[in-house]
Amino acid sequence: MPFSEFPPNYKIAVVGSGAVGCYYGGKLAHHGMNVHFLMRSDLETVKKNGLQIRSPDGDFHLREVNAFASTEEIGPCDLVLISLKTTANKALEKLIPPLLKENTALLTLQNGFGNEDFLAERFGTERVMGGLCFVCLNRVGHGVIEHYGHGALSIGEFGRSPQPRTRQIVEEFHQSGIITQLAENLVTERWRKLVWNVPFNGLSIAAGKITTDKILADEGLCTLTRNLMAEVIDAANREGHPIPHDFIEEQVSRTYKMNDYKPSSLIDYMAGHEVEVESIWGEPYRRGLRAGAEVGRLEALYFLLKKLTSRESAA
Amino acid sequence: MPFSEFPPNYKIAVVGSGAVGCYYGGKLAHHGMNVHFLMRSDLETVKKNGLQIRSPDGDFHLREVNAFASTEEIGPCDLVLISLKTTANKALEKLIPPLLKENTALLTLQNGFGNEDFLAERFGTERVMGGLCFVCLNRVGHGVIEHYGHGALSIGEFGRSPQPRTRQIVEEFHQSGIITQLAENLVTERWRKLVWNVPFNGLSIAAGKITTDKILADEGLCTLTRNLMAEVIDAANREGHPIPHDFIEEQVSRTYKMNDYKPSSLIDYMAGHEVEVESIWGEPYRRGLRAGAEVGRLEALYFLLKKLTSRESAA
Repeated sequence: MPFSEFPPNYKIAVVGSGAVGCYYGGKLAHHGMNVHFLMRSDLETVKKNGLQIRSPDGDFHLREVNAFASTEEIGPCDLVLISLKTTANKALEKLIPPLLKENTALLTLQNGFGNEDFLAERFGTERVMGGLCFVCLNRVGHGVIEHYGHGALSIGEFGRSPQPRTRQIVEEFHQSGIITQLAENLVTERWRKLVWNVPFNGLSIAAGKITTDKILADEGLCTLTRNLMAEVIDAANREGHPIPHDFIEEQVSRTYKMNDYKPSSLIDYMAGHEVEVESIWGEPYRRGLRAGAEVGRLEALYFLLKKLTSRESAA
Repeated sequence: MPFSEFPPNYKIAVVGSGAVGCYYGGKLAHHGMNVHFLMRSDLETVKKNGLQIRSPDGDFHLREVNAFASTEEIGPCDLVLISLKTTANKALEKLIPPLLKENTALLTLQNGFGNEDFLAERFGTERVMGGLCFVCLNRVGHGVIEHYGHGALSIGEFGRSPQPRTRQIVEEFHQSGIITQLAENLVTERWRKLVWNVPFNGLSIAAGKITTDKILADEGLCTLTRNLMAEVIDAANREGHPIPHDFIEEQVSRTYKMNDYKPSSLIDYMAGHEVEVESIWGEPYRRGLRAGAEVGRLEALYFLLKKLTSRESAA
């Protein structure tokens, strides 16, 4: 029965060994799972010094890391964790094929919308799973990841309800010390996550490189945050993903406790890295438009961010 | 008959001798009208060297300028041109009274909404007139104004149709070399001007300090510009000011001819001056909301600009 469960000691590849890939892959490897990392700039350092994770949950140091310079060297796997920046998705067309065998599952841990669709179109719908990361990380040096807090994962299947393999992964990830839960409907979960990401990641850049506490301290931006959330929820609801409107106050309250939090997009922007504008704002905007939702605020934010983060503006 | 016409050689005061006040006041004085300027930082230089206007229409130099340090020194006038930044309106409460006599008319040349209302509440509705300036100016030194182009004025009455005094001013300003026309309905004209100012002044700041040609060259910002214009037009229409939707394409085409134009708000922002956020975005947004218009894009732009231009952000 294809795609049912993974075999014992199944082989895992991590494609995109930035903060997310190293953190989750590192946790699994630390627990003794069979993890192979594709690395670029960190390869030599990690081969020599291993991988260091600094975390309020306890630091750890993986001395022996299976790090490779190409997916050809890694070869066919049972599970591929994809944690590339979504702006680099095009590269997956060449990176993924050497990792595939009959039942290889592709689990994208990337942000926002469009990634599962991208993988499904190219490598087959049944391979594709998605995970939402609720974590704050930063890669602070070659092979050194700083974990600031949170860390939960929510894993589901693309276009269908959870399968035996999904439950298996959730269980095993959980045993590796990652708080993991099953996403009954991945698209609903992505919409729920975007309810927070759309306003906070977006306004943190567009309102002048500010942390979440500064957004909440500004009356106008607070109103705009709530109204952006309402637009995202309306779009989700029209697409058939029920999110209640009181989710807005829940998200706002939660954010007050995060103090001077820097959303990942702000970190990317300030570091001069590409910002994932299409997956976080572009796709939800287009889906909202198609569903007939009023998405004027999202439109304004999307087009402003697209311009502000373009290579030309950044230069 | 009060407020009917101004007497021969009537006395004019200019309050707010920045670029707009010096340019229009200077044109009137150059034509021989009886103009008195309230000046602050430029006072000594202008008393010594006069006022210089550099313009593609021909430079001119006013050697003798009636410049004063207070409105008490100027004393009662027949007509007061108000060209302070709208962010400084509060100061008018003290500046205006010494200029008033029974029939003194107050003509605000300030931007956007809220200025006529402010004057009417404090000094009486019948005194108040408004003028829209279609001009590109910059004060480049003490008593030195650079005129880049355009220059038309549109003058009307607050809350009523044109009066004999309105027609008189339009005629006399026209004779002074200012292309002046009568605004049948001042509020309609202000809405029409905002159709341009809302997107172009706003996006020039919010999209990363860019000129109008850069806005037009960006597909997303172009869409956003048109949709912001549509929101402003809907708000105006709901308030009973008919502006046809084909005004949008007219305004966009006109802007293509302006090349790398810097909207006045961008000039203010880049110079570290206060930006007139409330009169250009805040008031139209609130009026739109009250009229039941969809103004989501305007809301996003308004709250972003409010934060971006706040003293705290500028610092």
